[in-house]
Amino acid sequence: MASAATKRAVPHLMTLADISPSQINRILIHAHYLKHVSLPWLAPQTKTPDGKTPKLRMPSQSLFNKSIALLFSKRSTRTRVSAETATTLLGGRALFLGREDIQLGVNETVRDSARVIGGMCQGIFARVGDHEEIEELAKYSPVPVLNALSSLWHPTQVLADLLTLHEHPYFLAEGAALEIPTGKKRTIAGQLPSLRPLTVAYVGDSANVLHDMLVTYPRMGHKLRIASPEHARYRAPKPVWDRVVELECDKNIFWTKDPREAVQGADLVATDTWISMGQEAEKEQRLKDFSGYQITEQLCREGGAKEDWKFMHCLPRKSDEVDDEVFYGPRSLVFEESDNRKWTIMALFDLLFGKWTLTRPSESTNL
Amino acid sequence: MASAATKRAVPHLMTLADISPSQINRILIHAHYLKHVSLPWLAPQTKTPDGKTPKLRMPSQSLFNKSIALLFSKRSTRTRVSAETATTLLGGRALFLGREDIQLGVNETVRDSARVIGGMCQGIFARVGDHEEIEELAKYSPVPVLNALSSLWHPTQVLADLLTLHEHPYFLAEGAALEIPTGKKRTIAGQLPSLRPLTVAYVGDSANVLHDMLVTYPRMGHKLRIASPEHARYRAPKPVWDRVVELECDKNIFWTKDPREAVQGADLVATDTWISMGQEAEKEQRLKDFSGYQITEQLCREGGAKEDWKFMHCLPRKSDEVDDEVFYGPRSLVFEESDNRKWTIMALFDLLFGKWTLTRPSESTNL
Amino acid sequence: MASAATKRAVPHLMTLADISPSQINRILIHAHYLKHVSLPWLAPQTKTPDGKTPKLRMPSQSLFNKSIALLFSKRSTRTRVSAETATTLLGGRALFLGREDIQLGVNETVRDSARVIGGMCQGIFARVGDHEEIEELAKYSPVPVLNALSSLWHPTQVLADLLTLHEHPYFLAEGAALEIPTGKKRTIAGQLPSLRPLTVAYVGDSANVLHDMLVTYPRMGHKLRIASPEHARYRAPKPVWDRVVELECDKNIFWTKDPREAVQGADLVATDTWISMGQEAEKEQRLKDFSGYQITEQLCREGGAKEDWKFMHCLPRKSDEVDDEVFYGPRSLVFEESDNRKWTIMALFDLLFGKWTLTRPSESTNL
Repeated sequence: MASAATKRAVPHLMTLADISPSQINRILIHAHYLKHVSLPWLAPQTKTPDGKTPKLRMPSQSLFNKSIALLFSKRSTRTRVSAETATTLLGGRALFLGREDIQLGVNETVRDSARVIGGMCQGIFARVGDHEEIEELAKYSPVPVLNALSSLWHPTQVLADLLTLHEHPYFLAEGAALEIPTGKKRTIAGQLPSLRPLTVAYVGDSANVLHDMLVTYPRMGHKLRIASPEHARYRAPKPVWDRVVELECDKNIFWTKDPREAVQGADLVATDTWISMGQEAEKEQRLKDFSGYQITEQLCREGGAKEDWKFMHCLPRKSDEVDDEVFYGPRSLVFEESDNRKWTIMALFDLLFGKWTLTRPSESTNL
Repeated sequence: MASAATKRAVPHLMTLADISPSQINRILIHAHYLKHVSLPWLAPQTKTPDGKTPKLRMPSQSLFNKSIALLFSKRSTRTRVSAETATTLLGGRALFLGREDIQLGVNETVRDSARVIGGMCQGIFARVGDHEEIEELAKYSPVPVLNALSSLWHPTQVLADLLTLHEHPYFLAEGAALEIPTGKKRTIAGQLPSLRPLTVAYVGDSANVLHDMLVTYPRMGHKLRIASPEHARYRAPKPVWDRVVELECDKNIFWTKDPREAVQGADLVATDTWISMGQEAEKEQRLKDFSGYQITEQLCREGGAKEDWKFMHCLPRKSDEVDDEVFYGPRSLVFEESDNRKWTIMALFDLLFGKWTLTRPSESTNL
Repeated sequence: MASAATKRAVPHLMTLADISPSQINRILIHAHYLKHVSLPWLAPQTKTPDGKTPKLRMPSQSLFNKSIALLFSKRSTRTRVSAETATTLLGGRALFLGREDIQLGVNETVRDSARVIGGMCQGIFARVGDHEEIEELAKYSPVPVLNALSSLWHPTQVLADLLTLHEHPYFLAEGAALEIPTGKKRTIAGQLPSLRPLTVAYVGDSANVLHDMLVTYPRMGHKLRIASPEHARYRAPKPVWDRVVELECDKNIFWTKDPREAVQGADLVATDTWISMGQEAEKEQRLKDFSGYQITEQLCREGGAKEDWKFMHCLPRKSDEVDDEVFYGPRSLVFEESDNRKWTIMALFDLLFGKWTLTRPSESTNL
């Protein structure tokens, strides 16, 4: 693999800030296509009236008999199961290596592990602790590294959210129709329904999901309105904000400490847990700081969200940040988001690990 | 997947009490067929004299590129390895999620996890703690849930035991012959050799394996004779006994505290460990209560078991409940049972997860 | 599987001392072939100019839909990832069972576990603690058992090292050319470039990697020069040395306590960590005993190694035993060794688990 790596720049993806709006759209179109080709495969097997198995179009098998390493230093359900099932659908094998299996940087340097694992697998999907760790992995890996979640970024979540918006009639541009792709691939290309310009509210802590929203939504033509408590640790850290400014996203971001102000005019209201894994110690302080931040019908009515506002949450959910009425109600798109984790990750694995056709802008001309 | 689920009732299997004797037979016939189609595939690869790989009939590939979630809150060898290897043979991928990987109900409600995992996988095989937990999973999962072991039931073990009986000449009905299915499937259907009416003795604790025996053997035409100490905790709990009575199985069940009385006239003597995982604290009390319950040649001779009685145990085995002479001797069918875990689980996965053609009686007309 | 096992002796491999030099060469040739057939499969998928996927020769699929159990009682990166990715390439599924999943000999005897797991899987690759444990597994398993690492031996590491030597121009016999096999298999057979007689120095603790070197290099025509501190625990234990003498390897082994003396005339200098997993308690004593043993340019110059000497290490590496200049420098073959773990393990899995054509000499005539 090392020789291949020297011939061709290895594509990595750390955050959606690394790629252009047209690259983001290409991933979404591909995910939409893979989803609708794969669903008939995954349905219960049936026979045609003459006793034969119906012929179905097979999704890409670009990972056939290949292996993708999942380096996860923290427990995960959605990201892990999405990645494992998506790899299986692409014909390959995901190899989960958790904290008990491999301790990056403990028994061996990250550099050596990157080279060793990258010499045996065809891609690395890494959920590490500190963001510097995944940058170190990417520096030395001979195969593509995709960020599954880091202290700073969470690109695959925001792709799943975007696909969910494109699939829901409420968010579509005038004249756009929800078409389910069928038949040949060439008839589907570019058929993802267009979105109207949206106002997206985020009420909660400034964490990795929001960070990828900050560098993405404004570039896709949407406005962000954010509420978080007035303390530096609840605001975007400098390395994130630098990317926001560099991509000129800040012009379409409004930040306040008042949840009601944030949801004003919102088509979509999103939040995330305030107490992530590892933050249990600060729980009491956080519950106090986020007092009044729980998403409810009342809060959104008082704040002036659009009448038909929808709700998103990346899960797992605690009731602190959203009540049952909203979470399990008709506004909620949380399980559609969750299902779409699989299809957007499948698209990324196909393009990045299977075909190496998704690269950082500086390295790419073929996208 | 959610849309498919709304169109069609999702089949689940919690205990053999959920299905009819003819459905049980259908699973056994299918397991018998899959076993004999698969064994040549699994044998060492050889060449024909002209250097070619021989053509073999392939087992069902109903799980091709599909994923089955194994939600196991306790460690397991037999059940897990059976399920993983059976899924592989069916062309799919089992995704093992142990206690370290996912803590059902801890970081997320069982309801949310059921919907999320069921949206990404094509079946859920769950070994949970309390039986209510798997009922909760089934309630919210958009894909079939199969009970791998719960506090109340253990359906896959009893299926493996039944297949083992059908394969052994000692238990066959007069005139029934052990035929190994070959060639086309239609010549095999219904070819499972018939059993004569058996007397089955069980000596030991009333736990999940026995519970599925209670609701199954009498309906298949066999008598059960059980010995357990005279204390409520060693007898079937109410939710189990209610099913026993509902299915009119109680008429063919004889229960005593005397192991000798239980084995009288037995064709088969079965037991299980008295000290399961999690019961280590009560070990001393249990050893005392089960004093005299160890299966030995002497006990069965004194109790009047049939001369050629056979022995079964679901493993893992401790020597408290059976001595080495019986366990490793010619009466023992324990490793045949263990091998058949794989084939009966494969049949269930094929029918339940791959084809959705096995359902609770109330929901089904196509079996 | 039991019936197959009784018909035919089950082949196992515990150490390279179990097989002949010609069998070792056959594995290396096969690994070399599989590597060059597989690399194009693993490369990023491309299209031909007319939009088609290029036709590639597929590696052996002898494990198609089969399952291999990986019984690992200690954490591992290289061995595990090699085995999992190699199995996937051969069309099968590796089933990793770590210390948390199965505790050999704790809840069930090794004998029972061997029979149960061997009845469900088509091979067992075991990394156990004490060497007697894997011998017990092999005694009762109905399918082949391959030693992934034991207290005494590490056969798959030494195979990877040998393949690395055969691929590097520095070690080749006069007139031997590095040919990359292409096209049909029959043109490749026997094409592994020949080695010249080498002087191999090993500086460090006498552990499992060295033990397999002791019974292998001399039989392949090479000299071994070893430096380890003058204490019984740093010298080969009796069961190992007995095999060395039995195979008449001792005549080509020179053992000293002086690292400089060991590297004299060396073509290759190898080492391993002095503080393996589980030896952390003796760390201070070991650092003292191995003082002066660090491989550096200076040590090898002073000791009189050949001018173009190369360096090997089985990884993971600590800087105690080799400095950065050597480890990351042009002499270092450590990552080539690591990559070759995969190809030699793939060859062994294909021959031993897929085809049963690799056996202990006493049982075999077909190699």
